[in-house]
Amino acid sequence: MPNISAKGQAMPESPIRKLVPYAEKATEQGKEIFYLNIGQPDIKTPQVALDAVKNNDLEIISYSHSAGFASYREKLAGYYQRVNLPIESEDIIITTGGSEALLFAMGSITDPGDEVIIPEPFYANYNGFATSAGVEVVPVQAKFENGFALPPIAEFEKLITDRTKAILICNPGNPTGYLYTQEEIEQLSALVKKYDLFLVADEVYREFAYEGLKHFSVMAQEGLDEHAIMIDSVSKRYSMCGARIGCLVSKNKAVMQTAMKFAQARLSPPTFAQIASEAALETPQSYFNEVIEEYVQRRDTLIQGLESIPGVKVAKPNGAFYCIAELPVSDAEDFAKWMLEDFDYNGQTIMVAPAQGFYSTPNTGNNQVRIAYVLEQDNLKKAVEILRKGLEKYQAK
Amino acid sequence: MPNISAKGQAMPESPIRKLVPYAEKATEQGKEIFYLNIGQPDIKTPQVALDAVKNNDLEIISYSHSAGFASYREKLAGYYQRVNLPIESEDIIITTGGSEALLFAMGSITDPGDEVIIPEPFYANYNGFATSAGVEVVPVQAKFENGFALPPIAEFEKLITDRTKAILICNPGNPTGYLYTQEEIEQLSALVKKYDLFLVADEVYREFAYEGLKHFSVMAQEGLDEHAIMIDSVSKRYSMCGARIGCLVSKNKAVMQTAMKFAQARLSPPTFAQIASEAALETPQSYFNEVIEEYVQRRDTLIQGLESIPGVKVAKPNGAFYCIAELPVSDAEDFAKWMLEDFDYNGQTIMVAPAQGFYSTPNTGNNQVRIAYVLEQDNLKKAVEILRKGLEKYQAK
Repeated sequence: MPNISAKGQAMPESPIRKLVPYAEKATEQGKEIFYLNIGQPDIKTPQVALDAVKNNDLEIISYSHSAGFASYREKLAGYYQRVNLPIESEDIIITTGGSEALLFAMGSITDPGDEVIIPEPFYANYNGFATSAGVEVVPVQAKFENGFALPPIAEFEKLITDRTKAILICNPGNPTGYLYTQEEIEQLSALVKKYDLFLVADEVYREFAYEGLKHFSVMAQEGLDEHAIMIDSVSKRYSMCGARIGCLVSKNKAVMQTAMKFAQARLSPPTFAQIASEAALETPQSYFNEVIEEYVQRRDTLIQGLESIPGVKVAKPNGAFYCIAELPVSDAEDFAKWMLEDFDYNGQTIMVAPAQGFYSTPNTGNNQVRIAYVLEQDNLKKAVEILRKGLEKYQAK
Repeated sequence: MPNISAKGQAMPESPIRKLVPYAEKATEQGKEIFYLNIGQPDIKTPQVALDAVKNNDLEIISYSHSAGFASYREKLAGYYQRVNLPIESEDIIITTGGSEALLFAMGSITDPGDEVIIPEPFYANYNGFATSAGVEVVPVQAKFENGFALPPIAEFEKLITDRTKAILICNPGNPTGYLYTQEEIEQLSALVKKYDLFLVADEVYREFAYEGLKHFSVMAQEGLDEHAIMIDSVSKRYSMCGARIGCLVSKNKAVMQTAMKFAQARLSPPTFAQIASEAALETPQSYFNEVIEEYVQRRDTLIQGLESIPGVKVAKPNGAFYCIAELPVSDAEDFAKWMLEDFDYNGQTIMVAPAQGFYSTPNTGNNQVRIAYVLEQDNLKKAVEILRKGLEKYQAK
């Protein structure tokens, strides 16, 4: 029997999905589960996007341009320009989700054995993309106590070697909800310029900034054109995760020409989803206002609820729709499993993502979980009560 | 300025798209071009697939299962069973096009430095996927004179090393149109079993078999369960290239579990396209009968036309919708460019794909082109006449 690859063996399992078998079993047992483990919003997709697909009159679903519809790239550039990002359509390659944009970026700027520095905890799939590209993730630890602010630049500098090709950030952060300040982006920019690195910013949650704070993009940073690569996606902005449309954005021509070769090898991004994404650009501002307002309320409900549970601490998020909570347990994964397997409160339980899988450093974040506030407030309140009761019983074991 | 990767620099340009700038210029000059360079059929997508998307009532376009809709996998397994392939839904991972299935297969079975043996000429994007995975393509040459039949097994055997992980075939072949016989598949099966390799078969043209010949799948080969990996796609079967839905199929559990980790890292295949693909399974047999009949006629029209041009030779295809033709020129790429830049016949010209890019061995196939017979017969006839006139003028230069 032939062997699978070392790379395949090394591919990490997603911490978000690791507990899915336990959830499936719990569901079979008749338990109702509140899913706080995955960033799948319950917000409706804008009608204008749904309608565009329903009203499409294509007779042949043919390949599109490998960089995506020209019309979509034009309008998308206009969208960025309206939020003061000087992006032209030729700076954009439409990808199959932000995931593919990350793969193209990795492929274009790294070779096997190269290193990418990432503040941890980070979006766990970065591990998968890095493993798949043979690239080593070098973590620099952001601290729960500081709300996961950017670690001191000196900490990054210590980790830079000849093999370092890029610094990768997620802004606002999944799983932390941390929104980087303009000053932090400026510090990172100075660093990548000093060492001639790329600064890759996953900005798929760019619209989800709270407390009146403004998102500051790497594409807004002056003098960073040759270094900045932005990853974006329609998944969260329009609650269109299943469309699988994202984009890679850069002013660096060599990067774009190289990424285009990866894009051509896979032919084109999906056509129906591009139709939806192009139309979604017509979404009225009122949609976003309502969505953001809803998330602010959910966040407040969740944080308030969590902080009312004895022993639970939260790093308050200013963006995205995740937070990291510390629980009064030594092994959050065991607790999360137990909540699915052995616990229910009036027939209900919750599923959370153990945070350990978001850290690259072993044995870190063992008492932390990531909670996505993607449920409506009544359900979030119920979920918090279930967590409270669960912790009581788990601790009393 | 930071450097792009060696891998990125090594990514080959697609031979199908290399001449696109020349075509764009020709179009600007007002020339009408018949596109014989790309496998984008002009056949209508089945109405049942289009309707399913138009009538979908989703309100949230959410992630699907990373392996694709369970309902789609079930029905797709049924489809395969009806053509006597013993495939169950758990043997299937739905992918974003056949391209992604190839990437998952490569990622699951090869590490950087490993080798994959491929009969050449082969689908050029295999080079891109191999480069992207750091894998070396080892070509074994199929001969124009033999209609691109499988090279002798001894030729494969000579090339097997400690780093060889798989043999990859395309059946029926792009760019050759060659349909492997059951005997040839059996020979390859014995070989991969002897050396404990994988046999990866790209069968995306499986329905396009002519002359009453039957396609023989690696999944139909007895005793090959641990070795066989099948790549499939809806792109050609239903003229849905832009949907970007394919699948990876294998009975080897280790392969499937590993591929699933790659699938989870990119979250899910596109939702609208899965709706279309699932519905497409209801396409009536009459659709395929008409399509195959049409392709047979196109093939006959094209081959007859090409063979009537002095100095042109064709390897007659028994499957897919491509053929390789030898032209009476020393540099088919130069000729193809010239046809776009400097030639027209009543304001019309043609675009063909120089075959050199389908060979891995340097300086091979220099006088060959790949022609896709994806145009209706009247246009194919016109295209052949344009080729005839073009060759006359080019040779007289």
